[in-house]
Amino acid sequence: MSALQLAASTGISGNLGAVAYGLAAIGPGVGIGLVFGHSIEAMARQPEAMPIIRQNMFLGFALCEVLALLGLVVPFIFS
Amino acid sequence: MSALQLAASTGISGNLGAVAYGLAAIGPGVGIGLVFGHSIEAMARQPEAMPIIRQNMFLGFALCEVLALLGLVVPFIFS
Amino acid sequence: MSALQLAASTGISGNLGAVAYGLAAIGPGVGIGLVFGHSIEAMARQPEAMPIIRQNMFLGFALCEVLALLGLVVPFIFS
Repeated sequence: MSALQLAASTGISGNLGAVAYGLAAIGPGVGIGLVFGHSIEAMARQPEAMPIIRQNMFLGFALCEVLALLGLVVPFIFS
Repeated sequence: MSALQLAASTGISGNLGAVAYGLAAIGPGVGIGLVFGHSIEAMARQPEAMPIIRQNMFLGFALCEVLALLGLVVPFIFS
Repeated sequence: MSALQLAASTGISGNLGAVAYGLAAIGPGVGIGLVFGHSIEAMARQPEAMPIIRQNMFLGFALCEVLALLGLVVPFIFS
Protein backbone atom coordinates (compact mmCIF):
# COMPACT_ATOMS: atom_id res chain seq x y z
CA MET A 1 0.00 0.00 0.00
CA SER A 2 1.07 3.57 -0.57
CA ALA A 3 0.87 6.68 1.49
CA LEU A 4 -1.18 8.22 -1.31
CA GLN A 5 -4.02 5.83 -0.55
CA LEU A 6 -3.63 6.61 3.15
CA ALA A 7 -3.96 10.30 2.61
CA ALA A 8 -6.82 10.01 0.16
CA SER A 9 -8.85 8.13 2.72
CA THR A 10 -8.75 10.68 5.54
CA GLY A 11 -12.03 12.11 4.23
CA ILE A 12 -11.61 15.73 5.30
CA SER A 13 -11.27 18.26 2.53
CA GLY A 14 -11.57 22.00 2.10
CA ASN A 15 -9.63 25.18 2.51
CA LEU A 16 -8.75 26.76 5.83
CA GLY A 17 -9.59 30.18 4.33
CA ALA A 18 -13.30 29.43 4.69
CA VAL A 19 -12.79 28.48 8.34
CA ALA A 20 -10.89 31.73 8.83
CA TYR A 21 -13.82 33.77 7.51
CA GLY A 22 -16.19 31.80 9.72
CA LEU A 23 -14.15 32.64 12.79
CA ALA A 24 -13.75 36.29 11.78
CA ALA A 25 -17.53 36.66 11.37
CA ILE A 26 -18.32 35.62 14.96
CA GLY A 27 -17.20 38.83 16.64
CA PRO A 28 -18.63 41.39 14.18
CA GLY A 29 -21.91 39.45 14.15
CA VAL A 30 -22.32 40.06 17.86
CA GLY A 31 -20.86 43.58 17.59
CA ILE A 32 -23.25 44.78 14.87
CA GLY A 33 -26.13 43.42 16.90
CA LEU A 34 -24.92 45.40 19.93
CA VAL A 35 -24.55 48.62 17.90
CA PHE A 36 -28.05 48.37 16.37
CA GLY A 37 -29.69 47.15 19.55
CA HIS A 38 -28.40 50.01 21.68
CA SER A 39 -29.07 52.53 18.88
CA ILE A 40 -32.71 51.49 18.56
CA GLU A 41 -33.17 51.76 22.30
CA ALA A 42 -31.57 55.24 22.22
CA MET A 43 -33.92 56.29 19.37
CA ALA A 44 -36.95 55.21 21.39
CA ARG A 45 -35.68 57.18 24.38
CA GLN A 46 -34.95 60.41 22.53
CA PRO A 47 -36.58 60.46 19.08
CA GLU A 48 -35.48 64.06 18.55
CA ALA A 49 -31.79 62.97 18.64
CA MET A 50 -32.33 60.55 15.77
CA PRO A 51 -30.02 62.19 13.18
CA ILE A 52 -27.04 62.02 15.56
CA ILE A 53 -27.90 58.47 16.63
CA ARG A 54 -28.31 57.22 13.08
CA GLN A 55 -25.04 58.86 12.04
CA ASN A 56 -23.08 57.17 14.81
CA MET A 57 -24.98 53.91 14.34
CA PHE A 58 -23.77 53.55 10.77
CA LEU A 59 -20.27 54.65 11.81
CA GLY A 60 -20.15 51.85 14.38
CA PHE A 61 -21.66 49.38 11.93
CA ALA A 62 -19.03 50.17 9.30
CA LEU A 63 -16.11 49.93 11.72
CA CYS A 64 -17.42 46.56 12.99
CA GLU A 65 -18.19 45.17 9.55
CA VAL A 66 -14.66 45.89 8.31
CA LEU A 67 -13.30 43.19 10.66
CA ALA A 68 -15.48 40.54 9.00
CA LEU A 69 -14.62 41.70 5.50
CA LEU A 70 -10.92 41.65 6.40
CA GLY A 71 -11.48 37.97 7.25
CA LEU A 72 -12.61 37.52 3.65
CA VAL A 73 -9.45 39.18 2.32
CA VAL A 74 -6.84 37.71 4.68
CA PRO A 75 -6.83 34.16 3.19
CA PHE A 76 -5.73 35.71 -0.11
CA ILE A 77 -2.86 37.47 1.70
CA PHE A 78 -1.64 34.24 3.38
CA SER A 79 -2.21 32.00 0.37
CA MET B 1 -2.38 -4.21 9.86
CA SER B 2 -1.81 -1.51 7.31
CA ALA B 3 -1.91 2.23 7.56
CA LEU B 4 -4.77 2.20 5.05
CA GLN B 5 -6.96 0.35 7.49
CA LEU B 6 -5.87 2.74 10.22
CA ALA B 7 -6.84 5.76 8.18
CA ALA B 8 -10.12 4.26 7.04
CA SER B 9 -11.08 3.64 10.62
CA THR B 10 -10.77 7.25 11.77
CA GLY B 11 -14.35 7.73 10.65
CA ILE B 12 -14.23 11.48 10.18
CA SER B 13 -15.12 12.80 6.75
CA GLY B 14 -16.54 15.96 5.28
CA ASN B 15 -15.65 19.35 3.98
CA LEU B 16 -14.34 22.26 6.00
CA GLY B 17 -16.85 24.53 4.22
CA ALA B 18 -19.63 23.23 6.45
CA VAL B 19 -17.53 23.96 9.54
CA ALA B 20 -16.92 27.46 8.17
CA TYR B 21 -20.64 28.19 7.86
CA GLY B 22 -21.25 26.80 11.33
CA LEU B 23 -18.68 29.14 12.80
CA ALA B 24 -19.96 32.12 10.78
CA ALA B 25 -23.49 31.55 12.10
CA ILE B 26 -22.49 31.90 15.78
CA GLY B 27 -22.01 35.65 15.82
CA PRO B 28 -24.99 36.78 13.72
CA GLY B 29 -27.17 34.39 15.72
CA VAL B 30 -26.36 36.30 18.88
CA GLY B 31 -26.37 39.65 17.09
CA ILE B 32 -29.86 39.28 15.59
CA GLY B 33 -31.10 38.25 19.00
CA LEU B 34 -29.63 41.43 20.48
CA VAL B 35 -31.21 43.62 17.78
CA PHE B 36 -34.69 42.15 18.27
CA GLY B 37 -34.36 41.99 22.04
CA HIS B 38 -33.45 45.66 22.41
CA SER B 39 -36.05 46.67 19.78
CA ILE B 40 -38.86 44.93 21.62
CA GLU B 41 -37.81 46.58 24.85
CA ALA B 42 -37.82 49.97 23.07
CA MET B 43 -41.30 49.29 21.65
CA ALA B 44 -42.60 48.51 25.11
CA ARG B 45 -41.11 51.73 26.45
CA GLN B 46 -42.47 54.02 23.73
CA PRO B 47 -45.27 52.35 21.73
CA GLU B 48 -45.87 55.56 19.74
CA ALA B 49 -42.34 55.33 18.24
CA MET B 50 -43.07 51.90 16.77
CA PRO B 51 -42.77 52.79 13.04
CA ILE B 52 -39.23 54.14 13.54
CA ILE B 53 -38.24 51.22 15.77
CA ARG B 54 -39.55 48.60 13.38
CA GLN B 55 -37.80 50.28 10.44
CA ASN B 56 -34.43 50.29 12.19
CA MET B 57 -35.02 46.81 13.63
CA PHE B 58 -35.25 45.25 10.17
CA LEU B 59 -32.29 47.33 9.00
CA GLY B 60 -30.15 45.92 11.82
CA PHE B 61 -31.47 42.41 11.20
CA ALA B 62 -30.54 42.54 7.51
CA LEU B 63 -27.04 43.88 8.14
CA CYS B 64 -26.43 41.15 10.74
CA GLU B 65 -27.90 38.35 8.65
CA VAL B 66 -25.62 39.12 5.71
CA LEU B 67 -22.59 37.95 7.72
CA ALA B 68 -24.09 34.48 8.12
CA LEU B 69 -25.12 34.26 4.48
CA LEU B 70 -21.59 35.27 3.45
CA GLY B 71 -20.43 32.19 5.40
CA LEU B 72 -22.56 30.12 3.02
CA VAL B 73 -20.90 31.66 -0.05
CA VAL B 74 -17.30 31.81 1.15
CA PRO B 75 -16.53 28.03 0.86
CA PHE B 76 -17.26 28.33 -2.88
CA ILE B 77 -14.76 31.19 -3.14
CA PHE B 78 -11.98 29.24 -1.38
CA SER B 79 -12.66 25.90 -3.07
CA MET C 1 6.53 6.77 -2.17
CA SER C 2 7.40 10.33 -1.39
CA ALA C 3 6.39 12.69 1.32
CA LEU C 4 5.34 15.12 -1.40
CA GLN C 5 2.56 12.82 -2.51
CA LEU C 6 1.45 12.41 1.07
CA ALA C 7 1.18 16.13 1.60
CA ALA C 8 -0.53 16.80 -1.72
CA SER C 9 -3.32 14.34 -1.10
CA THR C 10 -4.48 15.21 2.40
CA GLY C 11 -7.30 17.35 1.03
CA ILE C 12 -6.91 20.23 3.48
CA SER C 13 -5.23 23.30 2.12
CA GLY C 14 -4.65 26.79 3.37
CA ASN C 15 -2.51 28.69 5.80
CA LEU C 16 -3.00 28.76 9.56
CA GLY C 17 -2.23 32.50 9.46
CA ALA C 18 -5.71 33.14 8.11
CA VAL C 19 -7.24 31.05 10.91
CA ALA C 20 -5.17 33.05 13.39
CA TYR C 21 -6.60 36.32 12.09
CA GLY C 22 -10.09 34.85 12.28
CA LEU C 23 -9.60 33.97 15.94
CA ALA C 24 -8.05 37.37 16.68
CA ALA C 25 -11.06 39.16 15.15
CA ILE C 26 -13.64 37.52 17.44
CA GLY C 27 -12.91 39.58 20.53
CA PRO C 28 -12.49 43.02 18.91
CA GLY C 29 -15.68 42.44 16.92
CA VAL C 30 -17.66 42.12 20.13
CA GLY C 31 -15.62 44.83 21.86
CA ILE C 32 -16.14 47.49 19.17
CA GLY C 33 -19.84 46.74 19.20
CA LEU C 34 -19.91 47.28 22.97
CA VAL C 35 -17.98 50.57 22.69
CA PHE C 36 -20.26 52.03 20.00
CA GLY C 37 -23.48 50.67 21.47
CA HIS C 38 -22.90 52.15 24.89
CA SER C 39 -21.55 55.41 23.42
CA ILE C 40 -24.66 55.92 21.29
CA GLU C 41 -26.88 55.28 24.28
CA ALA C 42 -24.84 57.81 26.30
CA MET C 43 -25.20 60.41 23.49
CA ALA C 44 -28.97 59.99 23.50
CA ARG C 45 -29.05 60.41 27.26
CA GLN C 46 -26.91 63.55 27.39
CA PRO C 47 -26.62 65.15 23.93
CA GLU C 48 -24.72 68.14 25.35
CA ALA C 49 -21.84 65.83 26.38
CA MET C 50 -21.35 64.61 22.82
CA PRO C 51 -17.81 65.96 22.18
CA ILE C 52 -16.45 64.13 25.23
CA ILE C 53 -18.37 60.94 24.40
CA ARG C 54 -17.21 60.92 20.79
CA GLN C 55 -13.59 61.52 21.81
CA ASN C 56 -13.58 58.60 24.22
CA MET C 57 -15.59 56.44 21.81
CA PHE C 58 -12.89 56.66 19.19
CA LEU C 59 -10.19 56.09 21.82
CA GLY C 60 -11.89 52.85 22.86
CA PHE C 61 -12.45 51.86 19.25
CA ALA C 62 -8.78 52.34 18.36
CA LEU C 63 -7.52 50.37 21.35
CA CYS C 64 -9.91 47.51 20.48
CA GLU C 65 -9.15 47.55 16.78
CA VAL C 66 -5.41 47.25 17.33
CA LEU C 67 -5.90 43.70 18.67
CA ALA C 68 -7.45 42.57 15.39
CA LEU C 69 -4.82 44.29 13.30
CA LEU C 70 -2.09 42.64 15.40
CA GLY C 71 -3.68 39.33 14.38
CA LEU C 72 -2.99 40.36 10.79
CA VAL C 73 0.68 41.07 11.52
CA VAL C 74 1.50 38.16 13.83
CA PRO C 75 1.50 35.42 11.12
CA PHE C 76 4.31 37.31 9.39
CA ILE C 77 6.29 37.34 12.65
CA PHE C 78 5.91 33.56 13.14
CA SER C 79 6.37 32.62 9.50
